[in-house]
Amino acid sequence: MSNQTYKRIVLASRPTAAVTPDNFRLEEVPVPELADGQVLVRNHFLSLDPYMRGRMSEGKSYADPQPLGEVMIGGTVGEVIASKNAKWNVGDKVVGMFGWQELGVTDGSGMQKVDTTHIPLSAYLGSVGMPGVTAWYGLNKIIAPKAGETIVVSAASGAVGSVVGQLAKLAGCYVVGVAGGKDKCDYVTGELGFDACIDYKAANDAKELYGMLKAVTPKGVDGYFENVGGDILDAVLARLNPFARIAVCGLIAGYDGQDMPIRNPRAILVSRCKIEGFIVSEHMEVWPQALKELGGYVAQGKIKFRESVAEGLASAPEAFMGLLKGKNFGKQLVKLA
Amino acid sequence: MSNQTYKRIVLASRPTAAVTPDNFRLEEVPVPELADGQVLVRNHFLSLDPYMRGRMSEGKSYADPQPLGEVMIGGTVGEVIASKNAKWNVGDKVVGMFGWQELGVTDGSGMQKVDTTHIPLSAYLGSVGMPGVTAWYGLNKIIAPKAGETIVVSAASGAVGSVVGQLAKLAGCYVVGVAGGKDKCDYVTGELGFDACIDYKAANDAKELYGMLKAVTPKGVDGYFENVGGDILDAVLARLNPFARIAVCGLIAGYDGQDMPIRNPRAILVSRCKIEGFIVSEHMEVWPQALKELGGYVAQGKIKFRESVAEGLASAPEAFMGLLKGKNFGKQLVKLA
Repeated sequence: MSNQTYKRIVLASRPTAAVTPDNFRLEEVPVPELADGQVLVRNHFLSLDPYMRGRMSEGKSYADPQPLGEVMIGGTVGEVIASKNAKWNVGDKVVGMFGWQELGVTDGSGMQKVDTTHIPLSAYLGSVGMPGVTAWYGLNKIIAPKAGETIVVSAASGAVGSVVGQLAKLAGCYVVGVAGGKDKCDYVTGELGFDACIDYKAANDAKELYGMLKAVTPKGVDGYFENVGGDILDAVLARLNPFARIAVCGLIAGYDGQDMPIRNPRAILVSRCKIEGFIVSEHMEVWPQALKELGGYVAQGKIKFRESVAEGLASAPEAFMGLLKGKNFGKQLVKLA
Repeated sequence: MSNQTYKRIVLASRPTAAVTPDNFRLEEVPVPELADGQVLVRNHFLSLDPYMRGRMSEGKSYADPQPLGEVMIGGTVGEVIASKNAKWNVGDKVVGMFGWQELGVTDGSGMQKVDTTHIPLSAYLGSVGMPGVTAWYGLNKIIAPKAGETIVVSAASGAVGSVVGQLAKLAGCYVVGVAGGKDKCDYVTGELGFDACIDYKAANDAKELYGMLKAVTPKGVDGYFENVGGDILDAVLARLNPFARIAVCGLIAGYDGQDMPIRNPRAILVSRCKIEGFIVSEHMEVWPQALKELGGYVAQGKIKFRESVAEGLASAPEAFMGLLKGKNFGKQLVKLA
């Protein structure tokens, strides 16, 4: 393979505000020779996720920034195409963190074999992968919903939000989604089975958004899974019941450094609520249980999901910029050869 | 006693913004005849507390608003002066909730006998009363400090904040107060033994306040006890260490309905912190343990406190308005005859 090449995308520069195509660079590099113990993986799908935006900046965050000139971080699913490691066979389907590139080389650490008999390979990047476990952790460990409670989730049609809402329905809750646009809302209530969904784009201002939320949460809000921030968070704060719980998973509205104030933190006191941020990769102890439950639900059709698939590695930057603006519908993937 | 009268203060009107003297009315009413089973109490001290501001407004909050025309709510300490109840004797020292009035009549419910051998009567309205238990609960049950951690408390010279900081010092923490003015800061570090105290009034803007906080929290902030809100909360959010805990006890900065935004809620995610509001009266199960510990510390001189004492019932409205502006120094009381 020494004369062959593959493509990868590296971080070329850090965004000063919104992400631009200039922040990325497509490179073509030689396929490395495998050393003893190494495995070569062809990536079939890349996962695109909002957290990657945080890594592109240098500010203080929960993880070190993505280094310049190195392959963009990211989850991948693929298949072993060459192996000098007795534990891995050509043809094994695997999930790993090879980032934005067509191939990956590893000694096997950080890579898991997956079973695609009942679950499609790409789902291991979505409902049965990091986004699914994120939903599972925030809902079960922070919100801890009881049957009959009202649970709200933002970015409800997305990879995380769609799982949050379906798990909450399975737990017997009344579930309200927040999504951008009629199509997404129709999908959330029609296909995913949420009780209601409000279209934040149909609100002209924060007051209207609050009114829309109030209309579909007659019993107030007991739990909120936060993926967005901004006006939606303020509206939910004003609807909280006593002892409500808010899991803060993402604040995509502020990723480009915008001010994103909570206008009414007094609601924290009035409702005696708990607000807790979390990063799912810091709770590896729950992954086996979460993945087992999620895999079962997906295999049984109790958790449905939708994917936006961009074709070819070169399409990744544009698909990623679209994701940050909510242009995707469901889990955003990049399909490779 | 039927020809005798006593004085009381009722809520005359609700504040539209800041509290004004017009919101209160002093009344003189006849001392009632005691029925069988009843006890007459002379109040020696009234407690003035920020929560009373919330009760004066009609907006949604954790408690019903104070009714118009009725005696202002409030904790009191005093002594039994007449009794038709075998469980209570003339001369018993008691803590109760008789509100802003010179006398109180009760069947004994909601009133406790207290021992003033080693603890002054007024302390049962402060360090060994509701403010003390508030400090104890927020610190121990929400912040749960570990030795060596950095704990910050706002309104540090006040009835609650002073106890929070001293308990945190006893737990082996590095403790930073926030208070208004050099005198209060000197008291917090000199008398109460905090490691540092910043004077928020000395900061010209939010950036300076952040700089002052940063200078005295070289290892970041692990726990924050919030009594104030506003710029201080934002500055602390930017200094949080991973897995920090914030107990939200009061948000006095927003009591008159001002906007009080959290500018940077992204810190919630970056630090994976927990923010939790609480009302101490909803956690009666901890009161016996908390009061026992607090009483022991006060009797041994390990918890010190300071009082601002206004003289006479008629001084209560002005003293209360001063409290809301931070004019008091330590626990605000009104001394009655």
